[in-house]
Amino acid sequence: MAAGRGRLHGLGVGPGDPELLTLKALRVLREVSVIAYPAPERGASFARSIVAPWIEPHQQEIAIRFPMRPGPIPAAIYDNAAAALAAELDRGRDVALLCQGDPLFYGSFTGIFTRLAGQYGIEIVAGVSSLTACAAAAALPLVSRDEGLAVIPATLDAEQITARLASADIAAIIKLGRHIGKVRRVLDQLGLLGGAICVAHATLPTQQVRPLASVNAEDAVYFSMAFVGHRVPLM
Amino acid sequence: MAAGRGRLHGLGVGPGDPELLTLKALRVLREVSVIAYPAPERGASFARSIVAPWIEPHQQEIAIRFPMRPGPIPAAIYDNAAAALAAELDRGRDVALLCQGDPLFYGSFTGIFTRLAGQYGIEIVAGVSSLTACAAAAALPLVSRDEGLAVIPATLDAEQITARLASADIAAIIKLGRHIGKVRRVLDQLGLLGGAICVAHATLPTQQVRPLASVNAEDAVYFSMAFVGHRVPLM
Repeated sequence: MAAGRGRLHGLGVGPGDPELLTLKALRVLREVSVIAYPAPERGASFARSIVAPWIEPHQQEIAIRFPMRPGPIPAAIYDNAAAALAAELDRGRDVALLCQGDPLFYGSFTGIFTRLAGQYGIEIVAGVSSLTACAAAAALPLVSRDEGLAVIPATLDAEQITARLASADIAAIIKLGRHIGKVRRVLDQLGLLGGAICVAHATLPTQQVRPLASVNAEDAVYFSMAFVGHRVPLM
Repeated sequence: MAAGRGRLHGLGVGPGDPELLTLKALRVLREVSVIAYPAPERGASFARSIVAPWIEPHQQEIAIRFPMRPGPIPAAIYDNAAAALAAELDRGRDVALLCQGDPLFYGSFTGIFTRLAGQYGIEIVAGVSSLTACAAAAALPLVSRDEGLAVIPATLDAEQITARLASADIAAIIKLGRHIGKVRRVLDQLGLLGGAICVAHATLPTQQVRPLASVNAEDAVYFSMAFVGHRVPLM
């Protein structure tokens, strides 16, 4: 790595509550010259909103705008974002790339990290993931002892979801959003809908914890997760 | 809940690096009168060591001593610990129960939470889990897009591990310790050993990231995890 180049930090900023930022993420955030984050095509960035109280006016901001429609993210978005970050790193400026939850747990920035790896120093700062934040919100013992956990994207088809549920003790079905109807049907057929719990907007003021059976498709939000298994919440 | 009772906080203190404590865990830690934590039968508590810089002399400490031998933890340990914490809560004192990583992700304290739930106010503060801390240590894109993740305890038998690996895109095999020989054999038979990465003591000065194929049984430590899939580390 060339001397004088800046360093890229992938910062997990946690699930939403600013207090769930780690001390390390806060320190790095304050030290960098440039702060980059995902944002919708129009409007504010959720990741930025989590750390907004600590961003200083002298810090440069780079919003990486993603289309909100379903489907794969165009490679050009990652190419352009990686180029924009590389330009700052080449100037010797350190960059923090904000990642909701944890950077490597369903983060959208793996595409940027892979484009810059090897050329620049990269550090990943783990964050509180949506998985454990949602379990805490539901006061649900997520997994313990010899139990296996399956994390299953609701974007898979019904057959794949069924197969993955079959080999797990406990499952977390993520990215429910518009797939909630399909997930409810799959769980109902397996006799698992009754005990399933749905958590949305964990750790935010809008947090909701409800039986999945009571959540309709029109209520479903993208940042929601269902827990399936044989557990009873603590509270 | 009776007025005047204390509140129990399950605090995730992260994987080991004190800087991976959340702002919330630090605030609660400083506010409580009593700090409880798991400890071996003899010697120092790892969870306590993570937050040691912030513990004040006026705070009462309760070490909950666990046997280090394999097998189920005797119910009496949870009964006695729950009674000791209940006594403090009844006096109106707030208690923080320190949990390595995240309290609900293979935490040893579910047994205490369940004994006190309903009688006392309990709050769980999610922490950075070993799962994402180990992925960050290995700079390994853990899971993204439509990929499913299986978290598999190495304590399961070879047949169960094989079945769970079959239905996942990516797997994290946890609690390797003395089971590493079995896990290596299972992965070798499936042709998955070559790409598997082993992470031990993530985020600590003793952190190790190595190909699993190079880790022998005598080197294996309890707090280690293997990642299995078709990924290449970023760095």
